[in-house]
Amino acid sequence: MTTTPSADIDQIIAALWTVLPRDGAPLGLHEPEFGANDRAYVLDAIDSTFVSSVGPYVDRFEKGLADYTGAKRAIAVVNGTAALHIALLVAGVEPGDEVLTPSLTFIATANAISYCGARPLFVDSSDINLGLDPEKLAAGLTETAEIKNGQCYNRKTGARIAAIVPMHTFGHPVDMDSLLAVAQRWCLPIVEDAAESLGSFYKGKHTGRFGLVGTLSFNGNKVLTTGGGGAIITDDEKIADRIKHLTTTARQKHAWAFMHDAIGYNYRLPNLNAALGFAQLERLAKAVNEKRALAARYKTAFASIPGVRFVDEPPQTQSNFWLNALLLATDSTQLLTPLLEKTNAAGLGTRPVWTLMHKLPMYATCQRMDVSVAEDLERRLINLPSSPRLGRSYAA
Amino acid sequence: MTTTPSADIDQIIAALWTVLPRDGAPLGLHEPEFGANDRAYVLDAIDSTFVSSVGPYVDRFEKGLADYTGAKRAIAVVNGTAALHIALLVAGVEPGDEVLTPSLTFIATANAISYCGARPLFVDSSDINLGLDPEKLAAGLTETAEIKNGQCYNRKTGARIAAIVPMHTFGHPVDMDSLLAVAQRWCLPIVEDAAESLGSFYKGKHTGRFGLVGTLSFNGNKVLTTGGGGAIITDDEKIADRIKHLTTTARQKHAWAFMHDAIGYNYRLPNLNAALGFAQLERLAKAVNEKRALAARYKTAFASIPGVRFVDEPPQTQSNFWLNALLLATDSTQLLTPLLEKTNAAGLGTRPVWTLMHKLPMYATCQRMDVSVAEDLERRLINLPSSPRLGRSYAA
Repeated sequence: MTTTPSADIDQIIAALWTVLPRDGAPLGLHEPEFGANDRAYVLDAIDSTFVSSVGPYVDRFEKGLADYTGAKRAIAVVNGTAALHIALLVAGVEPGDEVLTPSLTFIATANAISYCGARPLFVDSSDINLGLDPEKLAAGLTETAEIKNGQCYNRKTGARIAAIVPMHTFGHPVDMDSLLAVAQRWCLPIVEDAAESLGSFYKGKHTGRFGLVGTLSFNGNKVLTTGGGGAIITDDEKIADRIKHLTTTARQKHAWAFMHDAIGYNYRLPNLNAALGFAQLERLAKAVNEKRALAARYKTAFASIPGVRFVDEPPQTQSNFWLNALLLATDSTQLLTPLLEKTNAAGLGTRPVWTLMHKLPMYATCQRMDVSVAEDLERRLINLPSSPRLGRSYAA
Repeated sequence: MTTTPSADIDQIIAALWTVLPRDGAPLGLHEPEFGANDRAYVLDAIDSTFVSSVGPYVDRFEKGLADYTGAKRAIAVVNGTAALHIALLVAGVEPGDEVLTPSLTFIATANAISYCGARPLFVDSSDINLGLDPEKLAAGLTETAEIKNGQCYNRKTGARIAAIVPMHTFGHPVDMDSLLAVAQRWCLPIVEDAAESLGSFYKGKHTGRFGLVGTLSFNGNKVLTTGGGGAIITDDEKIADRIKHLTTTARQKHAWAFMHDAIGYNYRLPNLNAALGFAQLERLAKAVNEKRALAARYKTAFASIPGVRFVDEPPQTQSNFWLNALLLATDSTQLLTPLLEKTNAAGLGTRPVWTLMHKLPMYATCQRMDVSVAEDLERRLINLPSSPRLGRSYAA
């Protein structure tokens, strides 16, 4: 005997169409937009012949990112994964360490931990903001960890726990005040994965600015794109200089000599891509407004639909609503796959959340805390088309 | 009492000026060139909105690279260092292994070995082609290595020796026949670092095609640039598929689901950069001809200058002469620094060879064979301005 789930697919899709334009243009999950200056700056970079590692657009783009986020420094790199890798290195993560991170995240977070020779230690997520849950983290650490000589250790594995990497899922800020308290209690630096949250603020301060360092991504599906790209933001000048050094093969400045003083990386963003990013910065505030207007429409459209909850921005935050998300009621999880199938077949770019990290073969043996909320969210979540243009006619 | 060195700085600089144009344009070490199609294809990529990980220019560029080199497959990646990293991984290099590579190379070769958790084992170079010397390698292996169960081990450290990474220095092909024989004798796969040798052939076959895999670089100073970029070439379809998988976060193909089956990398070349590369391919053959014409002029100009030797292409090879190089006689090494200073002060882009890898702090403790030739070359070598345009008026 089965009970009728409270959610109804046709009703959900009908609600979607009250928000989305039926103009025949693609309704992908997140489409970038380009204009006259995107073309002009990229051509300028080509005409200058400075397309590669040196060029004025890298400096301009970094300055623009620092201005927008309020960070003292921004260092542009080749993508968000590279940003995370270097951020973890400068936070002191070493081979054999463990790093706390949500199981509900994009693969880059866990992979960057692996690149350092460390292992992820998975934490549960909040069903309010979809990000790392500080309360469950605190409970898990009490059960698992101890402080020795001012450093945090895993009592079960004996490994040092070296950092916490929260990720602001779909642009919604994590509860940073609570997380900072846990981090302080357990002597842990925070590396903030703000790949999805450029334009998202927690209590008026840009995400990525609460930890020691924060990382951004400018992949093609992000609110600002450089083709591929990323950045690290920080208020610490010394750390910023070290990041610049490590991301440019750790070569010492000299007119012609090649002397490198550490194992460095070829992670700098080419000037060609920075030129695109510099143009994209000009439209960033507008794009965030359009995305927020789209989210407001979704919120209204789904308010009266039974069996679904639109994921809204948490209190005291301003989200960029990078990807709008809907949660099915717990009695309606069997509708997730048919809903994905039906919407994608109708040309709507929807998708489920990422497979949880602890379910992937290479991370299945990593230790995890109770991740029951993440497992619940994985069964219930669907992302909706979220391109800025879809909110344009609604934006103030 | 000092003897007068055989080389004379003013005579060398005068010979340089018989080759180089005095047109006031920069005489950098290697300047890229762009034309109408570079601008057109990049704009086309922007207008298509496919600037990032997906897009037709990546496929076109990969196909064009395969056609030019004759390799069955080419996989475009974010830069030459990333190409080397993945090439070593697919060659089976694992943490704790040692990898044979010349001490005279750019830092990327040694760093990529480190990224795999392996350590470089440094080999000497030939003063004919400036690349790894197979004879000295063979002698060193006889002294150091043994075969156990079909694998090569270092008798001194106990570590497995996992691969050989020759590098075609300044575009001059390594003596591949001899190297292949050594590799076979010691059961070692070859990962060919062809970062500098796009357009260079050994016995009619493109460099990078002799090993299991070969790697290319498209940095701004290379004969073909994508801003930043690289590629891996191979004739093995299975390895090519694995490279494509590993460089795209090891995500399994699916319309919407995110399932990754290995620790992968975000190393794919953005479509924006591939568009530039596709345009650059159209001028590659011409650029190589111009560079070869420039080299021929340098060769003539220095033929009668005492105390210097122009580094020519080795027999049975066709070099792209990526960077032209001059070797000072052993009795004239004290002239290297003044020559660098004087030429750079005069606006000529010259530079010494890279600091040898075994002299850098992070690689100083790595084991090395006799590297006396490399140490000699380091004291004697100076690179000369090598941009394609400098050879244009000389090219057929």
